[in-house]
Amino acid sequence: MSLIEKLNWRYATKRMNGAKVPQEKVDKILEAIRLAPTSFGLQAFKVIVIEDAALREQIFNTACQQPQIKEASHVLVFAANKKVTQELVDNYITNIASARNIPVEGLNGFKDMFAGVVAGDATQNFGWTARQTYIALGVGLVAAAEEEVDATPMEGFSNEALDNILGLAEQNLSSTTIMTLGYRDVANDYLGSLAKVRKSKSDLFIFK
Amino acid sequence: MSLIEKLNWRYATKRMNGAKVPQEKVDKILEAIRLAPTSFGLQAFKVIVIEDAALREQIFNTACQQPQIKEASHVLVFAANKKVTQELVDNYITNIASARNIPVEGLNGFKDMFAGVVAGDATQNFGWTARQTYIALGVGLVAAAEEEVDATPMEGFSNEALDNILGLAEQNLSSTTIMTLGYRDVANDYLGSLAKVRKSKSDLFIFK
Repeated sequence: MSLIEKLNWRYATKRMNGAKVPQEKVDKILEAIRLAPTSFGLQAFKVIVIEDAALREQIFNTACQQPQIKEASHVLVFAANKKVTQELVDNYITNIASARNIPVEGLNGFKDMFAGVVAGDATQNFGWTARQTYIALGVGLVAAAEEEVDATPMEGFSNEALDNILGLAEQNLSSTTIMTLGYRDVANDYLGSLAKVRKSKSDLFIFK
Repeated sequence: MSLIEKLNWRYATKRMNGAKVPQEKVDKILEAIRLAPTSFGLQAFKVIVIEDAALREQIFNTACQQPQIKEASHVLVFAANKKVTQELVDNYITNIASARNIPVEGLNGFKDMFAGVVAGDATQNFGWTARQTYIALGVGLVAAAEEEVDATPMEGFSNEALDNILGLAEQNLSSTTIMTLGYRDVANDYLGSLAKVRKSKSDLFIFK
């Protein structure tokens, strides 16, 4: 399948059949998420990958009891850093120096570019880091389709309750979105057979 | 190339060589963006696709004079709806009814789900619609790599100035991010030969 065919094949799967996604496929999807670009390359987020049944039961109850939380093979929670701290920036600078075999001091100019972000308030910081998780979500959704694994992007959950369940606040994190991985339950998912609805090309794009 | 190889091949291209991307490839990238999922499927954004040189000169001056704005083949500006209006929702409902050949009235329950969003304030609305454009950005970046077209995701510009140049505010839109399309200038792009830096798997993911 071409990328366009894969994007037409995928849909926000509402019912999954409980089958496990092979580890090899999960690994490829996570690797795509890891490689997703983010602003400055900072990757100011984490992804919590959940198989544990008891934890999923709790998440199910914070997510409007949407069945795919329990029927999925894996539940991925994207959680952005609430505050961009100097420690986060310093770790990133150390990573760059190591990957490119250059002295940390050689990156002082680049490091200084984060000063305004680190000095910024938490609401602004989170507004920015949260957006970046949606790039990773987009890349992850394509990667799942590439592996012919179904996926559901979800926002219908209580952020605060989910953060509490996963202990995210004390890690300077807050949940932004969920992506479940699994396989569509063809017999029971009403959405599977319905036509995809998108704006027309002329409605979505303005050419200049 | 596999998706993982494509994601390793791509990078935030800082210098482009001015070559035009064939229309067939541009069309495929735009179609991928059109098919990108968004919350509720609402697609509360537009993408301005710019080739015009004079317009690009103006954008260049609002975007820290980053050369890829002028050296790219196409400049895509993602612009989210500032306010989710009832008109936007009604148009979407009409689209669904048409695509699925069902009466508009049959979608009243789904339509009601937007009531809270439409009643919400503009800051909340834009916080939400802006995030959705980043899913489309992520999908667009993969689509470009699929076509072996270079792309640069950019946030380094004045939103207000760019909105003014493109007359976005009066269309209930505000710019969130830019993606340039073109071909890397191998001789002059310092970043092209540098190792990609990403968090390690154990640093990015938490397994439960």
